[in-house]
Amino acid sequence: MFENNRIVKLLKIKYPIIQGGMAWVADADLAAAVSNAGGLGIIAAANMPAEALEKQIIKVQSLTDRPFGMNLMMLSPTADDALEIAAKYHVPVVTTGAGLPGKVLDRLKPIGTVVIPVIASAAYAERAAKQGADAVVAEGSEAGGHIGEINTMVLVPQIVDAVDIPVIAAGGIADGRGMAAAFALGAEGIQVGTRFVCSTESNVHINYKDKIVKANERATAVTGRMLGHPVRALKNKFTKQFEELEKRGAPSEEIEAFGSGRLRAAVVEGDIEYGSLMAGQSAGLVKKIEPASDIIQDIINGAVEQTKKAARFAE
Amino acid sequence: MFENNRIVKLLKIKYPIIQGGMAWVADADLAAAVSNAGGLGIIAAANMPAEALEKQIIKVQSLTDRPFGMNLMMLSPTADDALEIAAKYHVPVVTTGAGLPGKVLDRLKPIGTVVIPVIASAAYAERAAKQGADAVVAEGSEAGGHIGEINTMVLVPQIVDAVDIPVIAAGGIADGRGMAAAFALGAEGIQVGTRFVCSTESNVHINYKDKIVKANERATAVTGRMLGHPVRALKNKFTKQFEELEKRGAPSEEIEAFGSGRLRAAVVEGDIEYGSLMAGQSAGLVKKIEPASDIIQDIINGAVEQTKKAARFAE
Repeated sequence: MFENNRIVKLLKIKYPIIQGGMAWVADADLAAAVSNAGGLGIIAAANMPAEALEKQIIKVQSLTDRPFGMNLMMLSPTADDALEIAAKYHVPVVTTGAGLPGKVLDRLKPIGTVVIPVIASAAYAERAAKQGADAVVAEGSEAGGHIGEINTMVLVPQIVDAVDIPVIAAGGIADGRGMAAAFALGAEGIQVGTRFVCSTESNVHINYKDKIVKANERATAVTGRMLGHPVRALKNKFTKQFEELEKRGAPSEEIEAFGSGRLRAAVVEGDIEYGSLMAGQSAGLVKKIEPASDIIQDIINGAVEQTKKAARFAE
Repeated sequence: MFENNRIVKLLKIKYPIIQGGMAWVADADLAAAVSNAGGLGIIAAANMPAEALEKQIIKVQSLTDRPFGMNLMMLSPTADDALEIAAKYHVPVVTTGAGLPGKVLDRLKPIGTVVIPVIASAAYAERAAKQGADAVVAEGSEAGGHIGEINTMVLVPQIVDAVDIPVIAAGGIADGRGMAAAFALGAEGIQVGTRFVCSTESNVHINYKDKIVKANERATAVTGRMLGHPVRALKNKFTKQFEELEKRGAPSEEIEAFGSGRLRAAVVEGDIEYGSLMAGQSAGLVKKIEPASDIIQDIINGAVEQTKKAARFAE
């Protein structure tokens, strides 16, 4: 299986499933669990102080001898530190968000790091490919957290048409059907976020996990569109108040201050009313809390079954 | 091919491809072209006066002896007239939008009409199935015109899980890859809108068609979210001004008056600056104007090829 899959070859992993680089969520424990299960676990550098990030990298290396990755948020004030840490520890794979990866490629390609930008339009994918990216994550707007405006269903084929490097589909993918659909659209791998938030090994507060498990397909809202920074999260008092601020045209400073610290409140304290429960539309497809290895096996088995089933029409 | 496909059997058509019931666009010429090519062509009743609609039905019956459909907008002031015309002419298939189809089922099921609501959430799909709908169209928010908020990638599998009747996927599907992905998600048919707007047989103004052909994946905008009636269309001066009205919190009457008549201006007069060029995100996948039969063959051939290609990973 996946013998000719370019993502599996590029990342030296068993299954072409990578875990989303979710701020506050994607730590060494989760990354190690995903990598040990045959996918690619990722540690989110986000705005983490250098020492904390370094500890996470050392920890993941103690928990797995398989490849893992780091997600680097280009706009973060700590991005330069994270870049140097990725170099120092020879992190095998770096995914990048919020900006073009030129700087990361310049620093890390010479030392053999695989660099994969997370991208929300075909134009950006083309530019990243020209800069030398090894692959791209095409992230549709059904994803959780900070999102673009183009949906997975149309984003993936257009990025596949635009670049020759392999494409990993993200956004709305939580089970084998999603993986089968992503491959039908031309992707060669998938990135999964929301379902891994609910893995046993994820250190996310149980209240947050429970809220995802109970969510249906209408459970998410997008806030921040008027500020130009759309974010998808489970609907709660926080998203409702955020929407009200936007509707009455509150100054952007006021809205940003209102949103500050809310993701941490959700992840660490389990504040499900006033925390930002970032999650994708796929929350409705997440039915239980289970080990990362079970999640990966379920996705792979489902994808094989569904692909065979769907292929019957062509007989 | 499609021997065990429930949509093909239910609708007595060759390929499980139905054409979207687009107001002002979906007329007898387009519907006949799609039906003659082996799909299901649909006439949009929208707000059409009874006599005009009747003429369209008589015309499509003169242009094809294959099954065709009518789309009935439940909230339209002319919906009751359209329902009686559907009954009078024994229109084989009726799709419904903007509301539950109870009334339509009561009137048309006894005379053997196939009734298929277009739906944007799993909860509505369940209710429509309980009312006796024969199938549902699961329409994701990548579609053009009036839309919901849930994307095709997550809407389709959740509706497939919620109901036993067959599911037709809509939103973001314009080529064989989209069809292959829809089937991977568990759909048994697809509805295509935007690509048929650009068919040779569509009577849409050439300016509008050209604008879709030239569009990329970022070409659409959603307006009306704050009014609770989101509409997706190609970005132009009209959508920009609409957004400005929304941002400054203009009264809904003012915004609605501003939007009135714009679709007609786009379709009939080819006003690409101030008309409402309703189109889905799949506009970026539409590359040329071609006959409806070529569109259908291209989708089918592409779906077969892509499904076989994607299935290789499971070997």
